[in-house]
Amino acid sequence: MSSNFMKASDLVAAGFSTALLALACAAVLLLVGTGWVRRGWKLPVLLAAIAALAGALSTQEARNAWIATAATPLDYFYACWFVSMPLQIAALYFAVRQAGALSVALFWRMIGITALMVLVRYLGDAGYMNATLSFLIGIILWLYVLGELFFGRMDEVVAKSRMPVLRRGYFWLRLIVAIGWAIYPLVQFLLSSGNVVSSGAVSLTYSLFEFPNRIAFGLALLAIALIESPEDKP
Amino acid sequence: MSSNFMKASDLVAAGFSTALLALACAAVLLLVGTGWVRRGWKLPVLLAAIAALAGALSTQEARNAWIATAATPLDYFYACWFVSMPLQIAALYFAVRQAGALSVALFWRMIGITALMVLVRYLGDAGYMNATLSFLIGIILWLYVLGELFFGRMDEVVAKSRMPVLRRGYFWLRLIVAIGWAIYPLVQFLLSSGNVVSSGAVSLTYSLFEFPNRIAFGLALLAIALIESPEDKP
Amino acid sequence: MSSNFMKASDLVAAGFSTALLALACAAVLLLVGTGWVRRGWKLPVLLAAIAALAGALSTQEARNAWIATAATPLDYFYACWFVSMPLQIAALYFAVRQAGALSVALFWRMIGITALMVLVRYLGDAGYMNATLSFLIGIILWLYVLGELFFGRMDEVVAKSRMPVLRRGYFWLRLIVAIGWAIYPLVQFLLSSGNVVSSGAVSLTYSLFEFPNRIAFGLALLAIALIESPEDKP
Amino acid sequence: MSSNFMKASDLVAAGFSTALLALACAAVLLLVGTGWVRRGWKLPVLLAAIAALAGALSTQEARNAWIATAATPLDYFYACWFVSMPLQIAALYFAVRQAGALSVALFWRMIGITALMVLVRYLGDAGYMNATLSFLIGIILWLYVLGELFFGRMDEVVAKSRMPVLRRGYFWLRLIVAIGWAIYPLVQFLLSSGNVVSSGAVSLTYSLFEFPNRIAFGLALLAIALIESPEDKP
Amino acid sequence: MSSNFMKASDLVAAGFSTALLALACAAVLLLVGTGWVRRGWKLPVLLAAIAALAGALSTQEARNAWIATAATPLDYFYACWFVSMPLQIAALYFAVRQAGALSVALFWRMIGITALMVLVRYLGDAGYMNATLSFLIGIILWLYVLGELFFGRMDEVVAKSRMPVLRRGYFWLRLIVAIGWAIYPLVQFLLSSGNVVSSGAVSLTYSLFEFPNRIAFGLALLAIALIESPEDKP
Repeated sequence: MSSNFMKASDLVAAGFSTALLALACAAVLLLVGTGWVRRGWKLPVLLAAIAALAGALSTQEARNAWIATAATPLDYFYACWFVSMPLQIAALYFAVRQAGALSVALFWRMIGITALMVLVRYLGDAGYMNATLSFLIGIILWLYVLGELFFGRMDEVVAKSRMPVLRRGYFWLRLIVAIGWAIYPLVQFLLSSGNVVSSGAVSLTYSLFEFPNRIAFGLALLAIALIESPEDKP
Repeated sequence: MSSNFMKASDLVAAGFSTALLALACAAVLLLVGTGWVRRGWKLPVLLAAIAALAGALSTQEARNAWIATAATPLDYFYACWFVSMPLQIAALYFAVRQAGALSVALFWRMIGITALMVLVRYLGDAGYMNATLSFLIGIILWLYVLGELFFGRMDEVVAKSRMPVLRRGYFWLRLIVAIGWAIYPLVQFLLSSGNVVSSGAVSLTYSLFEFPNRIAFGLALLAIALIESPEDKP
Repeated sequence: MSSNFMKASDLVAAGFSTALLALACAAVLLLVGTGWVRRGWKLPVLLAAIAALAGALSTQEARNAWIATAATPLDYFYACWFVSMPLQIAALYFAVRQAGALSVALFWRMIGITALMVLVRYLGDAGYMNATLSFLIGIILWLYVLGELFFGRMDEVVAKSRMPVLRRGYFWLRLIVAIGWAIYPLVQFLLSSGNVVSSGAVSLTYSLFEFPNRIAFGLALLAIALIESPEDKP
Repeated sequence: MSSNFMKASDLVAAGFSTALLALACAAVLLLVGTGWVRRGWKLPVLLAAIAALAGALSTQEARNAWIATAATPLDYFYACWFVSMPLQIAALYFAVRQAGALSVALFWRMIGITALMVLVRYLGDAGYMNATLSFLIGIILWLYVLGELFFGRMDEVVAKSRMPVLRRGYFWLRLIVAIGWAIYPLVQFLLSSGNVVSSGAVSLTYSLFEFPNRIAFGLALLAIALIESPEDKP
Repeated sequence: MSSNFMKASDLVAAGFSTALLALACAAVLLLVGTGWVRRGWKLPVLLAAIAALAGALSTQEARNAWIATAATPLDYFYACWFVSMPLQIAALYFAVRQAGALSVALFWRMIGITALMVLVRYLGDAGYMNATLSFLIGIILWLYVLGELFFGRMDEVVAKSRMPVLRRGYFWLRLIVAIGWAIYPLVQFLLSSGNVVSSGAVSLTYSLFEFPNRIAFGLALLAIALIESPEDKP
């Protein structure tokens, strides 16, 4: 895969490699799993699979950049988040729609705001926007998404649904978006602006948080979909 | 994927990376989605998937060339457009054919004129043809395609069809070809001739326009096809 | 894909890139299309898909060699032809067998003679055989294949068949083998011997002729197969 | 695959190459085999396939690092084990669940402890933790997993099941985890700490043990699943 | 695929390239073909597909090593043979089992002895074992495999079977193992020991023998399986 190699033990590169392998494995598992669930569940599982795939592709590049130059421009991470986070919100939306009607406007609002959140944070980190402003707007947009998930129509539909597995699963998926995704504004806050090239500690943190944020998210969704898909309809 | 890496934050490379990831994700989504729609809709969805795939492959090369040399020959973009634009017009044709009969001659005319449009623009940009002449011929050919889409037999078939989703979807798909694709003659006009190697601003523009022109186009087509495919015929 | 990049506009590299993208797209389209046709048509479509795949793989290498060294050894082209041309003849044979019985001996004769034709031409071009002799033997072998296609048992079976689409399609497929494939002895004749490393003009010619010879051939075959496969047997 | 090449015979590189090829072949065989077994068996077979895939990806990188630098940082191996070993324990869990009920808590306990075991060993080998302590904790965690497999609820369920093939297969799968996986603490013990960069002998040992630990494990699971899946339910 | 390129015509590299393309094409054809045959025939066809895939992967590396260094360590060939030859013997075993019962012990004996044969030859060629001894043991192990194929239980089962196509196919498959595989001890004998790095002539010979030994073997198996699989059970 890469044409440059670790020459000694390197905790950051090992973290990247492990996240890369785990993301690739999760993507394959979810892709194949798409074939085992009911038609309604195929789309959310596939979206989570593609989010893991995007994570794997950009983690590979981030790792190779780290091994070659001992620095990872945040661009690699942001490219991934800009694609995978809206995909995951879309996966949540289509999962909840299995339990009840959701407006199309809600879909566009949540997708658009998630993408905007990542874009604003990137502009801040890369110095194209005031760092504090970027941080604040990013927080507000994120809180809006959390608001929809915790108090909006989606929560309502899930609470009323007769799918206990979905209720329990939605609890965990929502938690990942609330707790796991909190690492991104947190790191942005701690680093302040101008730190566009990631140090080893930040890279390692971001690699490790792929496990809950992309992999556990996808596996939880697949588990819900498998339990909700009766055996005799493969 | 690449053996050269960004060393600092780079807006153009980040734009390329994001477009690449999004195109690859869209291609996988559409390819898998091909399996979920009625047989008649499989072909248009697959053609849109392949157009996204062609976009992903050439965006990857354009990005790597940018990172390595800080310049992207327009050849990379034109190779993509020469393949993906006729594929998208073909996808539109086969989508509309779900609603009524279309002549085979129309298919060949539209495919051929779209390919010719890209070729003429390339010859102008690369200096093998007078730039103004290339621009004018390119515009005329594009207007012909738009004429067919807005006032020709395809519009007629869609207007008469009993598929409200197709009518609404056709409106948006046609708009992408009319508004989104306008960026190509616009940039050509602004740059005048002789600018065969793309600057960062042009590269970033072209990357961003992959989102409406290839990705939104494909997703809209998949959405139409999914709604038109009854659940019990997977 | 490649680790070396165009630095300025390059018509030959652009031709290679476009042929590469188009061949890859055609291969994916034909591979997926294999799943949409009747069982008897699966094999010919798959063989045409694999011929396009072989074309894509060797075009990629030929292009990268061109970008790196501004010369393309003919070996890259011959490796492709040695594999893809017999595959295409086999695709024709299995397509015609849908309409009537064909002897197994005919299959081996046509495959063997096509492979021999490519081998003899390579030996001539690479200087391992007298160039004129290689040219003449190559022509004779090609004429034999054309003879079988135009006046042999295959023509007879198609003419008698009750599949009008196959009759019309066979007309075009045969024409590609007769007119499109004529470029190979023609270039060999024009260059005379000793020109084992391809100039840009020859490379561009060979790239462009991938469009009729590999891509149009495969798409025509898929179109025949799709029309001959009833909708209710997907 | 790699851009650096062996120049002479190299037993370690040959071992890596053979393990890489065999792991890739096993991954393809298991992935395709997933389609041939009953729905309940699909998940364990897929998990074993993904474990082999993870093994193939990291063996490729470890080999290329060896050819380029004549040393393989243990990071490559640990990244593989951290992903593939929990996957294999999960495969065992889901295989046994075909025969009877198993608690979800057991699943999380076994997965978590297996991942912890690999992590602790890595921290010891890489010098982030006292080597003896790492070795001891690693042994204890491994013994816990073996205890669950040999004397816990899983053994109970298998012993009571009416699937003789599963009983026999479980015997072998458990043996691989007990005997095959013993190589990892053994090598760790022999090398003592500080030897983070693998010598040739250790690399060759680890390559060879991919054959029982990943490949034979997966093939045994596929064999069980195929025999337990009746022919008429493909 | 490779980052180094031929600069002039090179018969050895052309041989490698052609074998690589043909092996990749055969692998795709056999993999897709797996979906067209009866369940019992899926496994042997898949095993032959994987053997071709292993051949393609190692031929690519051997070729790239040849282009870069004008020498191919035999390690590349032996890694391929160690994986693909047992796979092919396993394919033969599972093909014959379609016609009658075969003991599991026979399977392990044949697989193990084939792998041992390749290992012993490698140890001899690489100088880890006396060359004459290695040659003799290799011959004896090969003769044992041939004995099982020509006079053992497998021959008995095929001779008694009511599948005329299998009888005829088995004749050819067995012949490939007897005549085609004879090239390996022959070259070993002619080179004597110590010649671990392959000259061009040996590399070309090994490339060409991939055609009967891997490709024709797989295609023959697929042909048998297709004829034995009734059309109405796809």
